[in-house]
Amino acid sequence: MKFATLKNGHADGQLLVVSRDGRQAVAATGISPCLLDALQRWDAVRQPLQELSDALNAGRATGAFALDTTRCSAPLPRSPQWLDGSAFLNHGRLMDKAFDKPPPPLVDTVPLMYQGASDDFLGPHDDVPLPTEADGIDFEGEFGVVTDAVPMGVSPADALGCVRLVLQINDWSLRALGPHEMKAGFGFLQAKPSTAFAPLAVTPDELGDAWRDGRVQLQLHVQWNGQRFGEPNGGEMNFHFGQLIAHAARTRRLTAGCIVGSGTVSNVARRAGSACIAERRVIEKIDLGEIKTGFMHFGDRVRMQAKFDDGRDGPFGVIEQRVVAAL
Amino acid sequence: MKFATLKNGHADGQLLVVSRDGRQAVAATGISPCLLDALQRWDAVRQPLQELSDALNAGRATGAFALDTTRCSAPLPRSPQWLDGSAFLNHGRLMDKAFDKPPPPLVDTVPLMYQGASDDFLGPHDDVPLPTEADGIDFEGEFGVVTDAVPMGVSPADALGCVRLVLQINDWSLRALGPHEMKAGFGFLQAKPSTAFAPLAVTPDELGDAWRDGRVQLQLHVQWNGQRFGEPNGGEMNFHFGQLIAHAARTRRLTAGCIVGSGTVSNVARRAGSACIAERRVIEKIDLGEIKTGFMHFGDRVRMQAKFDDGRDGPFGVIEQRVVAAL
Repeated sequence: MKFATLKNGHADGQLLVVSRDGRQAVAATGISPCLLDALQRWDAVRQPLQELSDALNAGRATGAFALDTTRCSAPLPRSPQWLDGSAFLNHGRLMDKAFDKPPPPLVDTVPLMYQGASDDFLGPHDDVPLPTEADGIDFEGEFGVVTDAVPMGVSPADALGCVRLVLQINDWSLRALGPHEMKAGFGFLQAKPSTAFAPLAVTPDELGDAWRDGRVQLQLHVQWNGQRFGEPNGGEMNFHFGQLIAHAARTRRLTAGCIVGSGTVSNVARRAGSACIAERRVIEKIDLGEIKTGFMHFGDRVRMQAKFDDGRDGPFGVIEQRVVAAL
Repeated sequence: MKFATLKNGHADGQLLVVSRDGRQAVAATGISPCLLDALQRWDAVRQPLQELSDALNAGRATGAFALDTTRCSAPLPRSPQWLDGSAFLNHGRLMDKAFDKPPPPLVDTVPLMYQGASDDFLGPHDDVPLPTEADGIDFEGEFGVVTDAVPMGVSPADALGCVRLVLQINDWSLRALGPHEMKAGFGFLQAKPSTAFAPLAVTPDELGDAWRDGRVQLQLHVQWNGQRFGEPNGGEMNFHFGQLIAHAARTRRLTAGCIVGSGTVSNVARRAGSACIAERRVIEKIDLGEIKTGFMHFGDRVRMQAKFDDGRDGPFGVIEQRVVAAL
């Protein structure tokens, strides 16, 4: 199943079931008002939602309409928690090498993860208002999952069974603010403004073989102002999503609807390019001896879309956002 | 006004208006189902809630009943964000001195603040299930505020005007896990299990003169297994709540109902004692040359209650919790 959320003036928006080709949608009226509610009552709503999805795909859903993703918010405009890992160790190793610093302790065995704000997510085509270009504005292309309720102390294997939906994410970052917040030890806060999401949240089966080993085995194609920036593959995650969820639930339970992110998708092969500017800068420093690329300016655009290895479009739709000056 | 939340099987509970003496309550049925809803529609509900509060205090509210805080959840069982500062610099300075480490950069001018989980708070008398005593189980007595919607880039002065309610908090901490998470740079996650709250959330006017300079000028009396542990005063905060809110909203807006905490209440005068075990241990190391106090065991209890300087009970009610082994 594929889901989207129509902006309707309420904080949680209106739940839409979307056709497999992403073109048609139908409101889930009568089953569940919003995706967060559906996740909290999943056992009760899964079957009716599946029937509505089947009807839509068969061209016989009453009230179906053409989906316009510019009217969509994030699939979950707000969620109980937003926990973002840094599960592609290649990304961290590049950063460490460029700045000649030792790797964080236990980096190979304990996932890095920060707690982000989850009350005010951005939709796939929403402008990104930020206070100043001097903060070092950067995008971060990621994949993520939405969980069912997760008990404290869950095993990584059992945690994988708690994955309800898969997402594509743009984790906006302010690079001038991150180093201070890391050094102070309390983690990212100002360095992480509102996170954005592709329009469609999908059940893992919609990925077919590309949902494998607890990872999203898709390329994430990133463009900055219309120029190719990279297309790293999500399969290179050093920790799978079950491990990330288990890390998050080690000392507390998660309520249904929590979002767990992969961190910036990053591949060892240089030809894959990057999914964030900070990584390209680091590669320039290592390979060319100097940083050539600056961060984003107001008016800049970023576009992100997952694709299968055979070139087919991924299931999440497109993130296309513009950075603007906050008023 | 004073508010509490009755556990009713729903995630947000049922909103109660509580009498000034904390003994009587009445459901806010017909005005607002839950405190989060009330905060999100504050301008519309403030006057009817005030009228209900006045009627309750005058002994003429229909349906009033004796408040039993053992049936209460946290005033907000879940909230949009939980942002906890470390605004009592005495606490941090003690920690730094004991471990002979330099203070974090800019510690006098930029508040330390971490983003906590806000989807699963504990009520004032809820048991605290944790996986193992080996994690270094500790309480942290704090004060906090609940905000209205806060715009990005708000000034500290304007941010103070966004304070809607004042809270008393027990920020459970796992001390064996904190140092690794601080060193890794991504901030606290496993080191911060579910946070607990005193039963009553109050409008600032309920504190009278004790809400002054953006601070809660009350003593926080802490007992561990019935023994006095400390009663530091909230007035010694080095950053006021407006500064903390402004810090949190520097690069993003906050939605109505966000909670901002003070961090462990801590006073320079040794006679005040401490509001967390970690600080007492540090003082022992500095003053006595060795740490004598261990962390909590399963079955241990902590009690926290704010009091005015003249000995009157504070307005928040009592936190009294027991640590238990998670199943």
